[in-house]
Amino acid sequence: MGHEITLSIDAMGGDNAPASVIDGIAMQAKRDPDTRFLLHGDTAVIEPLLAKRKILEGRTDIRHTDDVIEMDAKPAVAVRRGRQSSLWRALESVRDGEASAMVSAGNTGAMMAMALFCLRRATGVDRPAIAALWPTRGMREHCIVLDMGADVRADAADLAKYAVMGSEYARIALGADTPRVAVLNVGVEETKGRPEVKEAAEILREMAGHSDCGFTFNGFIEANAIPTGEADVIVTDGFTGNVALKAAEGTAQFISGHLRGAFEHDWSSRLAALFAMASLRRLKRRIDPRRVNGGVFLGLDGLAVKSHGSADATGFAAAVELAATMSRADVIKRIAGQLEFSLESINAVTDSTDSDGARQ
Amino acid sequence: MGHEITLSIDAMGGDNAPASVIDGIAMQAKRDPDTRFLLHGDTAVIEPLLAKRKILEGRTDIRHTDDVIEMDAKPAVAVRRGRQSSLWRALESVRDGEASAMVSAGNTGAMMAMALFCLRRATGVDRPAIAALWPTRGMREHCIVLDMGADVRADAADLAKYAVMGSEYARIALGADTPRVAVLNVGVEETKGRPEVKEAAEILREMAGHSDCGFTFNGFIEANAIPTGEADVIVTDGFTGNVALKAAEGTAQFISGHLRGAFEHDWSSRLAALFAMASLRRLKRRIDPRRVNGGVFLGLDGLAVKSHGSADATGFAAAVELAATMSRADVIKRIAGQLEFSLESINAVTDSTDSDGARQ
Repeated sequence: MGHEITLSIDAMGGDNAPASVIDGIAMQAKRDPDTRFLLHGDTAVIEPLLAKRKILEGRTDIRHTDDVIEMDAKPAVAVRRGRQSSLWRALESVRDGEASAMVSAGNTGAMMAMALFCLRRATGVDRPAIAALWPTRGMREHCIVLDMGADVRADAADLAKYAVMGSEYARIALGADTPRVAVLNVGVEETKGRPEVKEAAEILREMAGHSDCGFTFNGFIEANAIPTGEADVIVTDGFTGNVALKAAEGTAQFISGHLRGAFEHDWSSRLAALFAMASLRRLKRRIDPRRVNGGVFLGLDGLAVKSHGSADATGFAAAVELAATMSRADVIKRIAGQLEFSLESINAVTDSTDSDGARQ
Repeated sequence: MGHEITLSIDAMGGDNAPASVIDGIAMQAKRDPDTRFLLHGDTAVIEPLLAKRKILEGRTDIRHTDDVIEMDAKPAVAVRRGRQSSLWRALESVRDGEASAMVSAGNTGAMMAMALFCLRRATGVDRPAIAALWPTRGMREHCIVLDMGADVRADAADLAKYAVMGSEYARIALGADTPRVAVLNVGVEETKGRPEVKEAAEILREMAGHSDCGFTFNGFIEANAIPTGEADVIVTDGFTGNVALKAAEGTAQFISGHLRGAFEHDWSSRLAALFAMASLRRLKRRIDPRRVNGGVFLGLDGLAVKSHGSADATGFAAAVELAATMSRADVIKRIAGQLEFSLESINAVTDSTDSDGARQ
């Protein structure tokens, strides 16, 4: 699997915690014998759950804390008053070098706010982003879309940095040596969209013109083309990205609900359902959100992975596996290197665009 | 069906024009004997198509023009140079009172730009919007989402006006006497989202507090909840709305592609497909985008309906039917009345919010 790593786990975050968390790390422990887990949470409830999982014997440490950040807590309040919480403590273990990554299924807003305080921004990054894997029917099974909601705004330079960070993620997670980057927009023509989106495209076109850039630039992409797989990294602000992701989720639920209804309509459709069972299971597995669970926080000086709040053990295990993969690949250092290399050209283009703007 | 109306038709706009346009109006003519059509386009190609459709005999007039706006023409160029085009002429017929609504499957950006010039904004409206019907599994078959891409931005007052205009649309098209309005956001908590979105929620909460408001306010909605039907009118800026719609379309295509694959996998899945045929056809019909084709331009001093560019005859007929329904219900006058009534309270709230903001 690779060298031994320790992952810091918020055992109390999420709708099904701590049971799904412990079951999830047990699943991952089976797949990856070289992982240890540092669990933050209530010892009294965690210990009995651990006792039932032989595979975790001798591979976990518990750091007790009573405090839990509620799923609906306001981020600002969580940061002020939550320093004893399992979420904050799990982040601290990464900051202090005890663990190489942390995973939580807790409150996303609180986690991002705390991560900004605890792990701090990477050099040159103003707005960190949450990157998600989006299923595609392209040559790769997924593409990467960011930001999924870390910040409700992003300017052109932010979007360019998302491209740099997302490309590094794509190299590790998708095996894309030279990822194809695109900017999400309402049309593919150059004249369309908001000013920051057009400016980001200018910066990325300029950057991709250099032979050592590390990605190619595909221009604009519309949201309906995300699942085609024609781009590996798609950048957008966190408001738009979050809405796009949820619109896709809502549509998938809408269709599967109708599909279920369609197969219960009469005797022939029920018979069909019997024969189709295997096919439908295959399809479900293919687009199962639990298999690709995990939003990676990029642009911080430490690795944090957010699992879906309602994740079950399979879902949580997927997020833990992602954290292990990214941690072993040293994604934070690699991104820092790429950013250092790119910041000059991003700033050069934004400065010249600004002065062009002023001249007009 | 109702009183006789004349609809102005851009016979040349769209990927399949003019054949799908003529076939589409023929379908609608069969359903609604009290509609006449004013066709703008190339007489030489329109006449032979009309000759094949007995139902249209004596119910059409052709206004010849050679000029067509290309699907990829830039809006600004179209407005400057396209005054002889079928699109512009079709709008002119509404402006001049020859027709009560116009329909085009042409270039959306050009159509909106031309409509702004030709029909002009309704009193009090800064940003007109494109409103679309979105399929739901709620008590009504659809909800209304706007703006779908008329403008890439919207401030709080714009969003409040979208709520007023969308509610009038919902009363006519959905039969919702007191529509439930919601603002699209990245979370349902009051603290989430962009400033303009939070301010819009404040305005709408204030407005909905008055007994004669005409709609109720549900607060924020996330994109995954759009298809649940928990709101009848969902307001957002045109950038976000356009991305949400296309993300939903892309997901539907992604799933139906996989579904097709799943049913061709082996002998049992092929057998299943045979039995499931009827059910799948029912599902397809339920979510068939052609049945709900038509983006209604709201906030203009005249009625314009945009059909999907790739619409076939069935799709175009749906857009024409929508135009007829909205025209008979006198949607433009009703919206003008509602806006006049609402502008004072929208301005009152935005003014006080502004001064609050300044005080901080």
